[in-house]
Amino acid sequence: MAKKVALAYSGGLDTSVCIPILKEKYGYDEVITVSVDVGQPEEEIKRANAKAEKISDKHYTVDAKEEFIRDYIFPLIKANGSYEGYVMGTSVARPLIAKKVVEIARKEGAVALAHGCTGKGNDQLRFEAVFRQTDMEVIAPMRDMNLTREWEIEYAKEHGIPVEATKSKPWSVDENIWSRSIEGGRLEDPSFVPPEEIYEWTTSPEKAPDQPRIIEIGFEAGVPVSLDGEKLSGYDLIKKLNAIAGENGVGRTDMIEDRVLGLKARENYEHPAATVLLAAHADLEKLVLTRSELKFKKIVDDQWSEMAYAGLVDDPLFADLNAFIDKSQERVTGTVKVKLYKGALTILARSSPNALYSEDLVSFDSKTIDQKDAEGFAKYHGFQARMYRKVMDR
Amino acid sequence: MAKKVALAYSGGLDTSVCIPILKEKYGYDEVITVSVDVGQPEEEIKRANAKAEKISDKHYTVDAKEEFIRDYIFPLIKANGSYEGYVMGTSVARPLIAKKVVEIARKEGAVALAHGCTGKGNDQLRFEAVFRQTDMEVIAPMRDMNLTREWEIEYAKEHGIPVEATKSKPWSVDENIWSRSIEGGRLEDPSFVPPEEIYEWTTSPEKAPDQPRIIEIGFEAGVPVSLDGEKLSGYDLIKKLNAIAGENGVGRTDMIEDRVLGLKARENYEHPAATVLLAAHADLEKLVLTRSELKFKKIVDDQWSEMAYAGLVDDPLFADLNAFIDKSQERVTGTVKVKLYKGALTILARSSPNALYSEDLVSFDSKTIDQKDAEGFAKYHGFQARMYRKVMDR
Amino acid sequence: MAKKVALAYSGGLDTSVCIPILKEKYGYDEVITVSVDVGQPEEEIKRANAKAEKISDKHYTVDAKEEFIRDYIFPLIKANGSYEGYVMGTSVARPLIAKKVVEIARKEGAVALAHGCTGKGNDQLRFEAVFRQTDMEVIAPMRDMNLTREWEIEYAKEHGIPVEATKSKPWSVDENIWSRSIEGGRLEDPSFVPPEEIYEWTTSPEKAPDQPRIIEIGFEAGVPVSLDGEKLSGYDLIKKLNAIAGENGVGRTDMIEDRVLGLKARENYEHPAATVLLAAHADLEKLVLTRSELKFKKIVDDQWSEMAYAGLVDDPLFADLNAFIDKSQERVTGTVKVKLYKGALTILARSSPNALYSEDLVSFDSKTIDQKDAEGFAKYHGFQARMYRKVMDR
Amino acid sequence: MAKKVALAYSGGLDTSVCIPILKEKYGYDEVITVSVDVGQPEEEIKRANAKAEKISDKHYTVDAKEEFIRDYIFPLIKANGSYEGYVMGTSVARPLIAKKVVEIARKEGAVALAHGCTGKGNDQLRFEAVFRQTDMEVIAPMRDMNLTREWEIEYAKEHGIPVEATKSKPWSVDENIWSRSIEGGRLEDPSFVPPEEIYEWTTSPEKAPDQPRIIEIGFEAGVPVSLDGEKLSGYDLIKKLNAIAGENGVGRTDMIEDRVLGLKARENYEHPAATVLLAAHADLEKLVLTRSELKFKKIVDDQWSEMAYAGLVDDPLFADLNAFIDKSQERVTGTVKVKLYKGALTILARSSPNALYSEDLVSFDSKTIDQKDAEGFAKYHGFQARMYRKVMDR
Repeated sequence: MAKKVALAYSGGLDTSVCIPILKEKYGYDEVITVSVDVGQPEEEIKRANAKAEKISDKHYTVDAKEEFIRDYIFPLIKANGSYEGYVMGTSVARPLIAKKVVEIARKEGAVALAHGCTGKGNDQLRFEAVFRQTDMEVIAPMRDMNLTREWEIEYAKEHGIPVEATKSKPWSVDENIWSRSIEGGRLEDPSFVPPEEIYEWTTSPEKAPDQPRIIEIGFEAGVPVSLDGEKLSGYDLIKKLNAIAGENGVGRTDMIEDRVLGLKARENYEHPAATVLLAAHADLEKLVLTRSELKFKKIVDDQWSEMAYAGLVDDPLFADLNAFIDKSQERVTGTVKVKLYKGALTILARSSPNALYSEDLVSFDSKTIDQKDAEGFAKYHGFQARMYRKVMDR
Repeated sequence: MAKKVALAYSGGLDTSVCIPILKEKYGYDEVITVSVDVGQPEEEIKRANAKAEKISDKHYTVDAKEEFIRDYIFPLIKANGSYEGYVMGTSVARPLIAKKVVEIARKEGAVALAHGCTGKGNDQLRFEAVFRQTDMEVIAPMRDMNLTREWEIEYAKEHGIPVEATKSKPWSVDENIWSRSIEGGRLEDPSFVPPEEIYEWTTSPEKAPDQPRIIEIGFEAGVPVSLDGEKLSGYDLIKKLNAIAGENGVGRTDMIEDRVLGLKARENYEHPAATVLLAAHADLEKLVLTRSELKFKKIVDDQWSEMAYAGLVDDPLFADLNAFIDKSQERVTGTVKVKLYKGALTILARSSPNALYSEDLVSFDSKTIDQKDAEGFAKYHGFQARMYRKVMDR
Repeated sequence: MAKKVALAYSGGLDTSVCIPILKEKYGYDEVITVSVDVGQPEEEIKRANAKAEKISDKHYTVDAKEEFIRDYIFPLIKANGSYEGYVMGTSVARPLIAKKVVEIARKEGAVALAHGCTGKGNDQLRFEAVFRQTDMEVIAPMRDMNLTREWEIEYAKEHGIPVEATKSKPWSVDENIWSRSIEGGRLEDPSFVPPEEIYEWTTSPEKAPDQPRIIEIGFEAGVPVSLDGEKLSGYDLIKKLNAIAGENGVGRTDMIEDRVLGLKARENYEHPAATVLLAAHADLEKLVLTRSELKFKKIVDDQWSEMAYAGLVDDPLFADLNAFIDKSQERVTGTVKVKLYKGALTILARSSPNALYSEDLVSFDSKTIDQKDAEGFAKYHGFQARMYRKVMDR
Repeated sequence: MAKKVALAYSGGLDTSVCIPILKEKYGYDEVITVSVDVGQPEEEIKRANAKAEKISDKHYTVDAKEEFIRDYIFPLIKANGSYEGYVMGTSVARPLIAKKVVEIARKEGAVALAHGCTGKGNDQLRFEAVFRQTDMEVIAPMRDMNLTREWEIEYAKEHGIPVEATKSKPWSVDENIWSRSIEGGRLEDPSFVPPEEIYEWTTSPEKAPDQPRIIEIGFEAGVPVSLDGEKLSGYDLIKKLNAIAGENGVGRTDMIEDRVLGLKARENYEHPAATVLLAAHADLEKLVLTRSELKFKKIVDDQWSEMAYAGLVDDPLFADLNAFIDKSQERVTGTVKVKLYKGALTILARSSPNALYSEDLVSFDSKTIDQKDAEGFAKYHGFQARMYRKVMDR
């Protein structure tokens, strides 16, 4: 029986050379390639498919766009997902891609799972956190073999793998519908000011329209459902918002990031829709959740983000956190008005049927509470600090 | 012997009518007024002094600007101080003002302390957290008597208190060097879009210069010390930054805020320098602090901010938190390059002698760590989630 | 129409004198008394009923034992509920009692709600957190009138209220099925060693049996369901455990407690079943939950306990926390063997079908992980501390 | 020049066979052995020295007892150090031992550092977190070679290493002055009830004296300084307390523990002095620290313990945490009375000059606060939950 291995396949040079390597160096008979569509540019998917047709033993393309949004992006929005400032598009896509590879490996009777990540980054950990839940062998040829780009190109030519005639790109890019990351090369130096050319989803603020764009996002139970009053699917809404906010220069991040292994790395990101949706969602929560919910949910959200970043979405704690978050989001329904202008996002107004603020409520309380009641409260505010002062003064 | 009361005095209508009220209704013989300069506009101080000269029994003006910056604003920067997004200018000024009033009350042999806050807001609590550490009587006439503006104006006229001929202002304002707050009137409605006229420190982004302004902030041990390479005192640096960032439209906040008593309130703020300094400081910390420091300091910073907002700066926990923060800030030295453009702030680059990133360090580690080591790490990443999966699959 | 008030009634002197006071001083026509059975000693209930028959306009006794266990005690066990060491029997009973009073007030068309707590403790806050959710008047005669025991006895005699001929008790006691609290008098002095006589549920360790008692508690989904293999209702199990652990001297607490208002108070408690169940539950969790769950649940549990102690069980955050906790408890099924001996509780053994430990699992992993893999892990353990050392050494 | 390696040496079989292995398999010319005295039984040190004399090229014994107590145990007490219930004796000794090995390696001009830990436990990580801060090679022969006990005995005989004629011990033990750990063999099964014979420091509760022993511990600034009024050095105090509490059966732990690598392990510990000191210290803190300090310090203490357990004491966060803790401990001075009886520890009383409780303070406050003030507080307690209720009822 043929010894099969399933490979997460992006169409790039790394995962392409993995195909012959898995046979020659690791002794597999058949390589099943799997490309997962999580909203990366269509041409990327097409290019991967075209290439796979030539060099893969069997190729699958899995459309996981809706699943990605429903099971990963919507929970991320509810959790105000952010790792040290990063909106985590790549982070939350990896487990889903890995799961799709496992599904197909099982269907095909494969005995091994492979990815093309190196040993320096986070993605190897995210893939393997899923892969290693199975009893299949896990293979990471790039990490094992420590290959150079030159060697790969030579090897590709020898094995009939088409190599794009482009000059060696100075930085590496990863994209899906939620974010685009740019890293490597001179960008690694934290004191290097990134050139405008690294950005593709966002217009330079200086070249953005001279008129501000004002939009209104509608949320239901913590999830965005409409734009300017029009109901939209998650995919359409994010796609549209990426265009609108991007053309107004909104949605760039330049940061120092702590990778899971401990290395600090300078990273640049674009994520127009994410910037708008996360800001609007957080603003709406402040209108609707109690102060104690806001304060504690921050802790829950931070834990959620740390696990999502590390790809630890199958630890049962992640489900526990989601149970908390889902409960808290039941009331997060309403609209938020946002202004986008030359790189700046400004919240202008918000409203909700579940607002813990309203003239009614305020006047109701002025019936039962009068100003003098605050005196009693004030007497107990800082009570122990006063006792401490007495002790210190003795 | 004359029964004296010391009153925190701003020069406004509320604190002015307090002077005769404290005599007529509360039976004090002498009212000592105290104005504290924490960087509010000079005219405001002058106006308060001029008015006090006419109506106060004895007036003090205390210049606390440097103390305010050194003991309240610099610690706030080190703590990335922010309460649900608010930079807390008013919050951290109140305890200092209260302490100055207490000092003068003691010097003058006063037996009581008074403030002009109502029973609805936070300031009563911040003043009294300090006042009530003494054995003096604490008096809050506005809260006790539930006065209307009309009554106050009438009463002022009867008692020879000059009343500005301005039309009743539609919102109330508080200013010091760190921030300007605007609240009340129609702004209370969270769905009301605030008009441009409420802002005084910041140019409208649409009217800001068409050329971006790039500046460089220098930090030493967590504290800003230079602008574009020029060493400046804290006061001069913040003043200058307020002008520069303000004219580029940077430094506005529009938010729903949970007051200490529990009421949600819509608040608008301006704070150009604070926006720049807090963003730059946080960015520099990411370059210098370890991941575990960043993660835990977030918790410490949140606690610091909550206490600063509530005016609980004399609880010994506040000093404990500052001990942690000061220790962590010893290495937070370096520079951050920031772009200001039509309301948007962008971090461009940063560097530090204490960076936990450098080509040296990275190459040092590639000597002792090779890619394959990550495989061992990966096998333990998510280890318990795998055991959980096995249990669930049984 | 008669103006009615509903009063939470315990049968003690305080709540008894409230009846005529509510009429004479507050002008109500009719006082409806409500006693709620949350597992306090049966004679206490009987005594309250007998007394109410004489002096109340209308009396209700509500059996809330099962509801108390199901909706308050079981969630408390799942949350490892403890406030600075206190098992919170009184704390979690108050909201339920208050809710029962509200229900009957509504049924009876009452316009006001009353309780007999003073202004010094926590119970006033717990009652009113529920009472004030209605539009009814809330009355606290003891707090308003600052009465002495002598005045109350005199007043009781004048109004035909039977007064027990006992000498003034040196401490005050509160009991329900989960705990018994003793406070006041000389006990208030933290350096006073409490006499043996304050304890009623627990035998003195020195007088406890000379043979240890070994028992086995069974849990399902975080909730205790059996004792030594016998399935029992929550009520029967707790009752039985109170007897068994109590006679072995297990379940006393002597502590300094921070009340909600800020006062520190020395408190003594007895709670034999609670001690056993909480220890066993926590031990079982360690076998079943992942490390990350254990670590984060501690934070959730602490928040739960703080809110339960303060009676803030209707803040929606409490429901959010319970959603997290319930999700985490799905697997907390198994048995724990406990030894009770002269005041000491020792965990001896535990087992669970969901243990994240088993020889199977361990051997499974030795197949896929070998010792050498730990070297890779070790190289990244403390990675940033090493970079920090390099920076410091420069 | 001779290629030297420094080896952390315990005198056991594992570290003894490492000596010839380091020469034969790793090619070193000279093995410097280092035994560090952290309060383990004196015979253990003597046995190690005697053995080293025969088989080591050069041997050092470092007396680090006082340093261990001052720099590791006292900070642990101040931090209420406990990892999931374990008092961490072994955990905090490892970094100190490793540092002593590094010091001697430097003095001797060694180029490598070695330890005898396997790849399954925590100790390898604790040693290497220190070792890898140097530029020296780090060697772990046991982990590399995956040796069996049988192989080691054979190899020892061949190389003239004395092998104790004892039967293979059924469990492995580690001791220092703070705790004794027992693990392995049948104990690994969480449902196996450990036999009495595993304990050496603690008398079985059933055989402990029939009279309770009451002792008083004195603390200064968070550190224990006296026993029953007699000033003692840290070492003498802990030694004495180990004897006293041990003979009363106090100080055993039986638990499921999550190792750093993720494996759950059943562990048994003895630590009589630690049990007493940690309980007394925590009780005293409740009398002296403010509620907000107690609540937040719990978070700080948990983080401290997690890092101490993992051996991450050189991450700068650890120093930041200690700065917080030291500040908080300045006032933790006073005495605590403790009863020890047949395995049970009971706190009886406590007092402190810095108590935030005293009759003075309480009576002072009844002057400035009266019961009615609590009504104002009560009206704001749960305020947002009430608004939430109104919203839900609409």
